[in-house]
Amino acid sequence: MTKPFDGGISRFFEDDAPDAVRDLIRNADKDHISNPDFPYPDEWSKTPYEAALADLQIELAKLQAATQSDGQRIVVLFEGRDAAGKGGTIARFRENMNPRHARVVALSKPTHTEATEWYFQRYIRQLPAAGEIVFFDRSWYNRGVVEHVFGFCTPAQREAWFRQVTAFEKLLVDDGIRLFKLWLTVGRATQLQRFLDRENDPLKQWKLSQIDVDGLHKWDDYTTAIDETLTRTHTADAPWTVILADDKRRARVNAIRAVLTPLEYAGKSAKAIGDVDPLIVGAPDLRHG
Amino acid sequence: MTKPFDGGISRFFEDDAPDAVRDLIRNADKDHISNPDFPYPDEWSKTPYEAALADLQIELAKLQAATQSDGQRIVVLFEGRDAAGKGGTIARFRENMNPRHARVVALSKPTHTEATEWYFQRYIRQLPAAGEIVFFDRSWYNRGVVEHVFGFCTPAQREAWFRQVTAFEKLLVDDGIRLFKLWLTVGRATQLQRFLDRENDPLKQWKLSQIDVDGLHKWDDYTTAIDETLTRTHTADAPWTVILADDKRRARVNAIRAVLTPLEYAGKSAKAIGDVDPLIVGAPDLRHG
Amino acid sequence: MTKPFDGGISRFFEDDAPDAVRDLIRNADKDHISNPDFPYPDEWSKTPYEAALADLQIELAKLQAATQSDGQRIVVLFEGRDAAGKGGTIARFRENMNPRHARVVALSKPTHTEATEWYFQRYIRQLPAAGEIVFFDRSWYNRGVVEHVFGFCTPAQREAWFRQVTAFEKLLVDDGIRLFKLWLTVGRATQLQRFLDRENDPLKQWKLSQIDVDGLHKWDDYTTAIDETLTRTHTADAPWTVILADDKRRARVNAIRAVLTPLEYAGKSAKAIGDVDPLIVGAPDLRHG
Amino acid sequence: MTKPFDGGISRFFEDDAPDAVRDLIRNADKDHISNPDFPYPDEWSKTPYEAALADLQIELAKLQAATQSDGQRIVVLFEGRDAAGKGGTIARFRENMNPRHARVVALSKPTHTEATEWYFQRYIRQLPAAGEIVFFDRSWYNRGVVEHVFGFCTPAQREAWFRQVTAFEKLLVDDGIRLFKLWLTVGRATQLQRFLDRENDPLKQWKLSQIDVDGLHKWDDYTTAIDETLTRTHTADAPWTVILADDKRRARVNAIRAVLTPLEYAGKSAKAIGDVDPLIVGAPDLRHG
Ligand SMILES: Nc1ncnc2c1ncn2[C@@H]1O[C@H](COP(=O)(O)OP(=O)(O)O)[C@@H](O)[C@H]1O
Ligand SMILES: Nc1ncnc2c1ncn2[C@@H]1O[C@H](COP(=O)(O)OP(=O)(O)O)[C@@H](O)[C@H]1O
Ligand SMILES: Nc1ncnc2c1ncn2[C@@H]1O[C@H](COP(=O)(O)OP(=O)(O)O)[C@@H](O)[C@H]1O
Ligand SMILES: Nc1ncnc2c1ncn2[C@@H]1O[C@H](COP(=O)(O)O)[C@@H](O)[C@H]1O
Repeated sequence: MTKPFDGGISRFFEDDAPDAVRDLIRNADKDHISNPDFPYPDEWSKTPYEAALADLQIELAKLQAATQSDGQRIVVLFEGRDAAGKGGTIARFRENMNPRHARVVALSKPTHTEATEWYFQRYIRQLPAAGEIVFFDRSWYNRGVVEHVFGFCTPAQREAWFRQVTAFEKLLVDDGIRLFKLWLTVGRATQLQRFLDRENDPLKQWKLSQIDVDGLHKWDDYTTAIDETLTRTHTADAPWTVILADDKRRARVNAIRAVLTPLEYAGKSAKAIGDVDPLIVGAPDLRHG
Repeated sequence: MTKPFDGGISRFFEDDAPDAVRDLIRNADKDHISNPDFPYPDEWSKTPYEAALADLQIELAKLQAATQSDGQRIVVLFEGRDAAGKGGTIARFRENMNPRHARVVALSKPTHTEATEWYFQRYIRQLPAAGEIVFFDRSWYNRGVVEHVFGFCTPAQREAWFRQVTAFEKLLVDDGIRLFKLWLTVGRATQLQRFLDRENDPLKQWKLSQIDVDGLHKWDDYTTAIDETLTRTHTADAPWTVILADDKRRARVNAIRAVLTPLEYAGKSAKAIGDVDPLIVGAPDLRHG
Repeated sequence: MTKPFDGGISRFFEDDAPDAVRDLIRNADKDHISNPDFPYPDEWSKTPYEAALADLQIELAKLQAATQSDGQRIVVLFEGRDAAGKGGTIARFRENMNPRHARVVALSKPTHTEATEWYFQRYIRQLPAAGEIVFFDRSWYNRGVVEHVFGFCTPAQREAWFRQVTAFEKLLVDDGIRLFKLWLTVGRATQLQRFLDRENDPLKQWKLSQIDVDGLHKWDDYTTAIDETLTRTHTADAPWTVILADDKRRARVNAIRAVLTPLEYAGKSAKAIGDVDPLIVGAPDLRHG
Repeated sequence: MTKPFDGGISRFFEDDAPDAVRDLIRNADKDHISNPDFPYPDEWSKTPYEAALADLQIELAKLQAATQSDGQRIVVLFEGRDAAGKGGTIARFRENMNPRHARVVALSKPTHTEATEWYFQRYIRQLPAAGEIVFFDRSWYNRGVVEHVFGFCTPAQREAWFRQVTAFEKLLVDDGIRLFKLWLTVGRATQLQRFLDRENDPLKQWKLSQIDVDGLHKWDDYTTAIDETLTRTHTADAPWTVILADDKRRARVNAIRAVLTPLEYAGKSAKAIGDVDPLIVGAPDLRHG
């Protein structure tokens, strides 16, 4: 089997990865969380995960039925490093929702024309109408992090964006849109392990991009950019929810809980939702990766 | 739990379903196929199904990689009665494909403006550009069947549509679009069983619509409309592939095989694809339901 | 000839118009401005008007050439009562511009779906990309005036809109879009005279709408709504330019001057542009009608 | 004044134009038609032209009122060499129509993505809904002529397009769309004279493109391509109307007459429409240029 990007992931693992990271991966047991900062040593086990998820999906179905009748508009925006688990979490949200009213938006890089428009314009086009829940898999936060790290925008453009983004989000929230901003965060070993898995799995290779490979060398730039972005955009109107995502199962369940908890909808069962795990979910200061 | 549509499905089952259908459902064992016309008595077992599917999904990943580089455009159009398994089959196709280039199109009923446009216009807007695979979950065949059965179009409009549809498809095929038209067909007991399951499962209730409930009483109208539609639109340029879909597993695997078999792409493995099952897949005359 | 809207305009003129207005219209000479508040007694004569306009259109052509190369984005938004001359002024701007890059946006009333979206969303979709000049014939100011006067929005929605509109415009301006907000204002006799002309001219009848006819009875409600809107949205970032428009010729020439004067572009000739007439063009306090 | 395209038009006139063409232009009097093949020596005079146009525009207003109520859909497609007068003719059609329901469609060259779609797709997106009249300023006939002459498509693509275009148009007509295909034709001296005027008039320079300049050297290639296109696409379902357009006034009036004559609408006055001039309007064999 040929590896994508000329085996750039495994080459990074062999040649460039920090020793500590390489060791964590080499020594990883199945089910063991490689990131030592993660509050639990092992992955949550399958049975309670599936039970919790099943309960939560019933709640999501109720939520959707309710939004259909009360016209509520919900945006759930997912950010995080590559391989943090954004797509998989969105899939669990949507698994048993009517896809017509629970859209995913994953925009490609801007076209030449879009690149000259108001930065938020192409995202605004995707905002929900009454009864819709829109999941953004990456979002206008690209400018704060990936565009900055890769030089796709100038520092001045990023500064201008920082000036705008909080005002922009305030407009949405003020208009009645329920805006959830979820930041999934993973440790360096977790990310690299997932990239290696993707490189080796023909079914997952499509998930890898040149940006992922090049990004491996930019971990620290990302860290700086993320810290700054989280700090400057964690507002009272539109706060961040940071989720430690080294364990996919806990991340998914807690992401759904974080969204459902503050919402009102007919038939809501606080018991079925359960409690958000404070070791996993928090404000930006929870993040350490 | 309140049942959707005031329990219209179970009421139909109790009060209106033909005795033979009711008996088939009452006597159904788990894993047993309720439709007596189906060529196999039992559902295909899980292990070989999952193995076959895994192989096929690797082939789909190769296909997608190839279309990305050779610019091929593919349309796979799914038709069939409600609960025939269109959505689930599409999901298996797409499970490990890049969703950006493997779109699903499931259009809502036409808006007031769309209803006055050329009938094919809103579907044409969704046709693939280079490198795209588009899955139509229902399609322009609505006019041949559901719109006719429910009186959403006049007989004259349907006649006009019959005049147009084959010429229209010829244009697409002639333009180089690879067009697959898959008709999933299920027996009456299978459909009703699936509706009952949906009525009882809060995670699946969103799949039920008023059309489904009302359609229960129109089984024979559907049969006539389907027969006529298949007969008149099974052309050399754009033939139908009928798939007996009472067993979801066999249907999914065979649908993917039917699409992959005639296509060329780098790394294609005829062995991994396997053979289409001629008891399950055929021309319109295979259908008996 | 049948009159549109059952002759509602001429009936208003006969039965309901204030005596003073009716007298002004009855006694109007050709070329005389019926509105007594207008600073000039007569229409500007044709020869100097056409000469000025020709010079200005050459400047607009230069402006457009410049925006094509420097990527500038310009929005010129036109507001004002019905028959104030918005469309005609836009036509003079665009007469010799490349229509591909000098779009007019005149949105119909929102569809059912649009009505549930963020109010600004459908306007944002129309904002200029690099090199474009977009003319809005009516705009997001509908909510401040016509929607309010006719009850198409609730007072709470209007209040929310007031909270948002200035922040929204600040975002656009801050993003580098050159935003011109022109309010064309006419006296009551002028408006009614123009409506009567439209009612009688088969080529202009399409310009009349039920809103125009019903609006005749709401002159004072409009006045109040306009005053409030102008006052609350005349910001440093996005100030209003009010133009007295009882004389179409002076209005058109001065509108173009007001837009060109602050812009920079290659080959700009201050002499060709000429001076904005301070009796015609000013801040909101210039308005008296 | 700097001339656009480095004075390419006047340089062609001085250096490359056939002598006969140059002489025709040098000796042209005002109002005299430079093309010697044109059936009239002089331009039609202003007074009867304006009277005829005024009558026709009233008819167009009636037509539009009628289409608004009966939901008719009309396409008027304009083709012809550069400077044949397509844009100006469309402007006369639309001068007193409600622009919301009488759209012009003048597509830019296809984007990278559009170039890979079905050729007709981006045009189909623009087809009229009920009550609309759509004017195509250039159309899907680009492939037959300009794309061929400039090598923007391969001969095979053009051949494929020829196979498709008549079937495609048949579908539209069969669907009830009233399709008018107008080909405006001008002599070589007329075209060059108009280009020279554009080069010298700062208000018209934007109308010139590199294609126009380069196209001057390809007159004969155009002729061949036009002949073939007209011949192969003049079908009973969608015949061509060729209009000799060296005299803009006659061309405009006759184009409107050609569209109005076969249509039915409330209040139609055959007298106001007048007769199409058979010296100016005909089938493809009328063309000689
Ligand atoms: N009034 C209508 N006119 C035309 N088509 C309709 C109308 N109502 C429903 N349909 C179509 O009938 C099909 C079946 O409807 P439904 O069962 O509600 O949807 P689905 O099978 O997608 O869940 C859909 O494709 C829908 O768009
Ligand atoms: N029901 C409505 N809700 C919101 N806006 C409306 C509604 N009806 C009309 N309008 C808006 O009011 C404005 C004035 O309407 P009208 O006089 O009919 O149009 P115009 O001035 O463009 O000819 C338009 O911008 C129109 O979109
Ligand atoms: N590279 C291209 N591929 C296809 N079509 C093109 C290309 N370049 C120009 N055209 C088309 O050729 C036609 C003539 O071009 P041009 O003279 O520039 O435009 P216009 O006549 O609209 O001013 C236009 O319809 C344009 O879209
Ligand atoms: N040239 C670019 N300009 C702006 N954003 C980009 C560019 N290239 C990639 N991106 C974005 O970066 C993110 C990660 O890219 P990828 O890993 O390729 O999906 C995506 O949201 C892309 O849209």
